[in-house]
Formats: sequence, C-alpha cells, structure tokens
Amino acid sequence: MFLGEVERIAGKNISDVLAKLVEIPTVSAWGGSEMVEGANLVSSLLKSLGFRVEVKSGGGNPVVFGEIGDGSKTVLIYNHYDVQPPDPMELWDSDPFEMVIRDGRIYGRGVADNKGNIAARLAALEILLPHIDELDLKVKFIIEGEEEVGSPTLARVVEDNREWLRASGGIWETGYVKRDGRLSISLGFKGMIYFEASLRGANRDVHSGYSPIIPNPVWRIARMLTLLKDENGNVLVPGFYDGIDREFLETGEIMLREVDIGDLEAMASALGIKEFVGGVRGVEALRRLYLMPSLNVSGLYSGYTGKGSKTIVPSTASIKIDVRLVPGQKPDVIMGSILEYLKSRGFQDIEVKIESMYPSGYTKPGEPIVKASIGAALEAYGVKPEVLPMAAGSGPIYLFTNILGIPMTGAGVGYYDSRVHAPNENIRLEDFIRGVKHIILTLINFAAITR
Amino acid sequence: MFLGEVERIAGKNISDVLAKLVEIPTVSAWGGSEMVEGANLVSSLLKSLGFRVEVKSGGGNPVVFGEIGDGSKTVLIYNHYDVQPPDPMELWDSDPFEMVIRDGRIYGRGVADNKGNIAARLAALEILLPHIDELDLKVKFIIEGEEEVGSPTLARVVEDNREWLRASGGIWETGYVKRDGRLSISLGFKGMIYFEASLRGANRDVHSGYSPIIPNPVWRIARMLTLLKDENGNVLVPGFYDGIDREFLETGEIMLREVDIGDLEAMASALGIKEFVGGVRGVEALRRLYLMPSLNVSGLYSGYTGKGSKTIVPSTASIKIDVRLVPGQKPDVIMGSILEYLKSRGFQDIEVKIESMYPSGYTKPGEPIVKASIGAALEAYGVKPEVLPMAAGSGPIYLFTNILGIPMTGAGVGYYDSRVHAPNENIRLEDFIRGVKHIILTLINFAAITR
Repeated sequence: MFLGEVERIAGKNISDVLAKLVEIPTVSAWGGSEMVEGANLVSSLLKSLGFRVEVKSGGGNPVVFGEIGDGSKTVLIYNHYDVQPPDPMELWDSDPFEMVIRDGRIYGRGVADNKGNIAARLAALEILLPHIDELDLKVKFIIEGEEEVGSPTLARVVEDNREWLRASGGIWETGYVKRDGRLSISLGFKGMIYFEASLRGANRDVHSGYSPIIPNPVWRIARMLTLLKDENGNVLVPGFYDGIDREFLETGEIMLREVDIGDLEAMASALGIKEFVGGVRGVEALRRLYLMPSLNVSGLYSGYTGKGSKTIVPSTASIKIDVRLVPGQKPDVIMGSILEYLKSRGFQDIEVKIESMYPSGYTKPGEPIVKASIGAALEAYGVKPEVLPMAAGSGPIYLFTNILGIPMTGAGVGYYDSRVHAPNENIRLEDFIRGVKHIILTLINFAAITR
Repeated sequence: MFLGEVERIAGKNISDVLAKLVEIPTVSAWGGSEMVEGANLVSSLLKSLGFRVEVKSGGGNPVVFGEIGDGSKTVLIYNHYDVQPPDPMELWDSDPFEMVIRDGRIYGRGVADNKGNIAARLAALEILLPHIDELDLKVKFIIEGEEEVGSPTLARVVEDNREWLRASGGIWETGYVKRDGRLSISLGFKGMIYFEASLRGANRDVHSGYSPIIPNPVWRIARMLTLLKDENGNVLVPGFYDGIDREFLETGEIMLREVDIGDLEAMASALGIKEFVGGVRGVEALRRLYLMPSLNVSGLYSGYTGKGSKTIVPSTASIKIDVRLVPGQKPDVIMGSILEYLKSRGFQDIEVKIESMYPSGYTKPGEPIVKASIGAALEAYGVKPEVLPMAAGSGPIYLFTNILGIPMTGAGVGYYDSRVHAPNENIRLEDFIRGVKHIILTLINFAAITR
C-alpha cells in the first residue's frame, strides 16, 4: 500500500528538498540572516504540499508550524532546520554546505541531523497525502531553528501555543540504523546544560617572561577540570547523580537487556579507541550512556592558539562544558551543585555564561505511537528495531512529553557512521528511502491502533 | 658633543624609518613574503646611511648584515625586524600595522620590540657617522627575522660568519625605562624551549552524547598540567632547577640587592593582580624572575572555541609551552627531563613539536661595553641605570656571548608599560630620543675605554 511511489518521491526530495536545505548554512551558533532564510525555505516546502503554515517566534529564530489533514487522530512531528558549525573545515572532503552524493552516501552538514529527516518526512507526507482523510489523520509539524544551541526560546513558543500543538502522539527529530541493520528507536532524550566558564589572571596578556610572578589562569583551569571528573570518568560534583527518576531507571535497566553493545564497540574501534572511559564494558557502558547524566568539555581555550609561537601569560582561560541530564534531574539544581562545588574549592571568581538549560524527557514503551513505530520498523527494515530508553544525545523533548503530555517516538535516516556534529556528516541513500517508508508506516499503524 | 642633532634626527627617523618598519606585518609566526619585504627595507635603510650590506640566510628568513667605519674598535649591534602576532586584534585601539602617535606615545606592533630600537640605532649612527673615524670605530649590525619564533636558523648564520661577526663589544636588541626614570640594562637573556604538546583521544571529533564512553583528551591534558606545576608556581619536573651556573647565581644575588621591586609591584597592580604567583614578595620575586628558569603555558586549545555552543568530544587537546632557561642549563637536558617525567606519569603517547630551543647567555658586569653603557645611561637619563644580571625575557644572545665570545650589553627605547607582545604596544617619544642619545654615548664611551 502506497509504497510503490517511495523510491521516486524519495529521490526527488533528495535532489529538490535536501539539496536546497543543505545549501543554506543555518548554523544557529553563528546566527545571521541565514536562519530566516532557512525558516522561509521550510515554510515554502510545507506550503507547496498544501500545509497550513504559521511562523511563530519566542524571541529567537523563527519556528515553523505546519498542519495538514482534518482527521481526529493527531500526530505532531518535531524537527529543526538549524545545524552545528562545520568546523574543523579542513577535515571535510567536500563543501559542508553543498550536498554531494558519493558511493551511495549523501554528504553535507545536516544530512543526518536534521535536514535529511525533514526531507524524508516531507516525502512521506507527499505520498500519504491522498489517503490522509481516509486514515482520519491530522499531521502537524513544528520545525525550530535553535536546537543545536539548546532551544533557548522553544519553551516560550510551546507555552504560547499549547492548543495548536495538542496531539495524541509524536515523532521526534532523529534516529539511525545500527551496524546490524536494525533501526534504533529512542524513547527519550537527555536534558542539557551548556555553559562557558572562564577564569581570569591579569587584566591583559603579558609577555611570558613575567610568568614566574604573574598568575596564569591556565594552571587554575587545569586544576578545576581535575576536580570535576576523575580518571575513570566519574563526575566528582556532589549531588551530580542525584534525583534520577526511579521508574525510568527500572524500565531502562530492563530495556538495556535487549541492547547489543556490539555497535558501540565497533564505533570505538573505528575511532581508534582501545577501551571505553574508565575501562567499562558491556551493560555498564550502556548504563553510563543511556541511563546516567554526563559532563563533558566540548571546548577549551586560552592564550595563543594560532600557528607557530607567541609567548604570553594569557589573561583568561575558558571552557565550554555540556552536561546531559536524565529524567528526574532538575537543571537548576544540578547547575547549582556544580557552581557551589567549584566555589567551595577555591573558584569563587569563576565567570559563567549559560548557553542553554533544559531537563530530559521520555516516553514509556507501551504507548500507541511507540508500538506503531516499532511495528513500522519491522516492516520497513525487515528486522525488529532496537528500542532505547534514552538516546545518548539531548533534545528539548521534555516540552512535548512533560509539558504538553504527548508520547513521542524517535526515528530517522542516519546510520551508525553518520558523523553527526563532525566533518563529513553523511547518510546512506538506502536509509533515506527506508526512513520514508518507516514514517509512512508509523502513521498508518498509529491511525489503526488509536481510536 | 653631537647631541644637538638628536631631536631633529630622532624625529625624522620616527616618521621616515619607524613608520615604514611598522607598516610591514613581519610576523615571523605567520611567515610569508612580508618577511623578505621587511629584510629588504632594513637593507635599504642601512645602505642609505652608507653601510656595506650583505644579506645572509641560514635557511630561514633573511638576516641582514651591515658594516660601517674602518676603526680598530668594533661594536656589534643585534636587532630583529620580526614581530609577535598582533592578536587579540579586537583589543587594539588602532591598527597594529600603522604607526600612530597619541599623547606623546608611539603605538604599533614592534615599536618597543624591536623596530623602535632599529630606528633609534640608525638615528644614532647617522649622527655619529661624521666622527666614526676619529673615534676609531667600526660598527656592525646583524638584524634577523626569526627572533619571535626562537631564532631557529640564526645559529647557522652565526657559525657560517664567525669572522665577519668578530667584535670586542656588543649591544643587544632591547631595554626599557623604569617607572622611576632609570634605564634598565640587562646583562643576559634567558634561553628558550618552545614546544607544542598534543594528546589524542578518538581519531575524529565525536558527538558529545558519547562522552560517557569515548575518552576526551581534555581531562588528560588538565591532569598533565597539574603534574607540571604546583599551585605555588613551582615546576614539578625532576631536574628542572638543576645545572644553573654557580658564578652567575652568586653575581646575580649581589646585583639583585640594587634592584627595586617597586616597578614589578606597580606593574602587578596595574594588571589587577593582588599578589605574585605563590605569594612571593621582595627579593624572592626578583630571584624567580631574574635568576631562575620558568615554565609557562602560552596557549591551550581543544575542541570548539568559536562563539556559542557546539557539542563534541574533541579528538585532540594541545598546549603551547615556553620554558625559559638560565646560564648553565642545557636545553636538550631540560627538554629530556620534561619528556621523561611526562612519560613516566602516564603520558607515553604525548606528541611534541619543538618550535625553538636555545640556551641562555650573559655578560659579567665588569666588561668595557657594560661600563660604557652604564656611564652613557647616567648621562642620557640623568640617573644611574638599574643593572640586571638577566632579563625576564629570552633571546639567542648565547650565540654572541658564548659562541663568539662577545660581551654584550642591553638597552632600548621601551618603558615599563610598553605592552610588549600585547595589544597597544607603545613607546614614549621622550624614551626614543633618550635611547638615541644612550647609543651614541655608549659608542663614544666604548671607544674611549678600549684600546
């Protein structure tokens, strides 16, 4: 049913939709007029399919709302048109903002996260459209432009449009195919605290001949880092592992029994990593990844970072830290614990700029949209999907699961080597096509299951 | 004698010579055709005064040799036409590569270090020229273009031209006027080891959702830094303080009795620093600065250092370290100790790129060129100079003092707030004029003292 058209429409959407999306450098960390340009493209793509489109704003980049169908069963699809910065540029084999197809793979910033999913879902809707009334479906899109910087204004948009966003099931932005060919479906996403912390020494850089007497903040930031995490990867901030939802942990433990560590081991091996952090293995590695909060340094800089040499005592040293939270953990409480701990250890003068802050959200495996998605995956991929209690990554899914109360399932067109957030981000053509099928089937299943 | 002309010639050289020198961005850390352009300008300036000029090379940037006079008393003057990188650009109040005069100060990259000294010394020679035979003097210039990157090819040039470089006294590139109006004369410069050290994790950046299991080299580099130096600024590498020349230390201790800590305290206060590293005060601070080796981090970088947020586990973390050595210490021995120590503490995989490496050199205070310089300072500045056993900074003076056996004295046109290596580098007009006088008088005194 319907699937005969998939390959043709998918192919058309890769060249007509995805290529255009990739071309606009919608890097939300940079901002600029490209963000509006990206939102306008998304609006016009939705309109051309017949969607009723509204553009909203919570004070940040535009959020595109689109709605089609008049059925009683409503599915909300969340995506984002913004992408991560492309650097380090020199490690890309082709221009990150030009879609290139090589050896069955589609390359470009955002093809996996998350423009490829926008294109695939539009293809699915185009195919399903003639049957939408017969399925008694209404499909809504919400496509934001700040996901990669922590969705700072999305909460406002959701609060302001609770009625419009009402739905009985939802599909989250992303997902990927594992090495063994199974689709990985995530039923939750971690929360996020992203902040930049700086320490200062002198009020300007000084000739490093004076280093014996002028304090260099690099030594202090190094000490601060060793106080944050031990050599086995355990976060040393008191209370960092507190507050985790018991029910989530219990359900999660059970779900992890069905999860294979093989993909992670293969990934580590491809990355040249001999062992996981702290030497953890098997289910303990899965637990750390899918059930526990984390603290990471995404960036570190001080003084001269150009080529060759410059001899200075730098005046500042800065770190960019991302903390990922799990269900039950409150971002303000955890951030408070981190700051209190650092201040108690001699870093009263730390300067902190919070870039984003939101909690985790998740859906229980028995919800109709999850069942619809699992069934669709078995058909589209020919094999039972892997269902994770929580993705390793973050996303503001709590706005939908916790605030709006919509059960959400995750799925997408990436694969295990998609290099999300990294140079040479790519997806496989076959996964794009199967991803289109999976969305079609999920919607059909959902229409069948719900009353 | 001669000094009536100083103000006029100094003024002319500021506008005609220094302005032109500043205009060429001879940043040796960047390289490029500007280096040859800088050398050509220096050559033509020397030629226009009547110098016999030869351009030499040791495989790197051109080294300009110039000689004038035929007397039996030879003085060798060392300078460099290269400069430090100007960044952080945004902290400059005017273009670093355009000389600007504001409120009696001359601004631009290199005006203190070291283009201002080139211009001042050319002015001194222009004034002295009619009398050079009568003084029985021969003056030689050696002006290199790699001092700010550790003079990697100067040793070769010196070895290849030992005969040409023969002299009975020498004047080093730089010096400055203290807050109390005294000229500071340095009788030595520290040695230098500049290296970049990197640690690797995965072979590419990875989405930071995987941080619980994929090693991040930032944590290791932080730990490495805490093993290099304690909180009081003591270097923890075994043997780091070994091998220091006893005689230098003894003479140095005596000389420090005449050195006033006030300038350093005022500098720290202007920099917003409440206390020196480790809380040291008085002669202990002077000892650390002028008699002891040091280890500093000039730069530190890993992962995303742009604006906003990017969430990755960085694949590499790097530090740029400058080590400054004192007389008696062998660079290869100290570098060996650092690497052996790091390897013994779990950093066998450290990748090191050495940018420069040379020992310290110094001159004893009783040498004729030093006496000539001290007497000249009393006359030019109206007050006894401060004489330091060693500058806080480095320079390849050992090639002259140790290899060629030429006693060297240091003097120059900077002042205590010249912001050497930093934004808004500047000198005072009055110091330029007094610096010209000081060079003239040093040469006259030297001619009178020596036979």
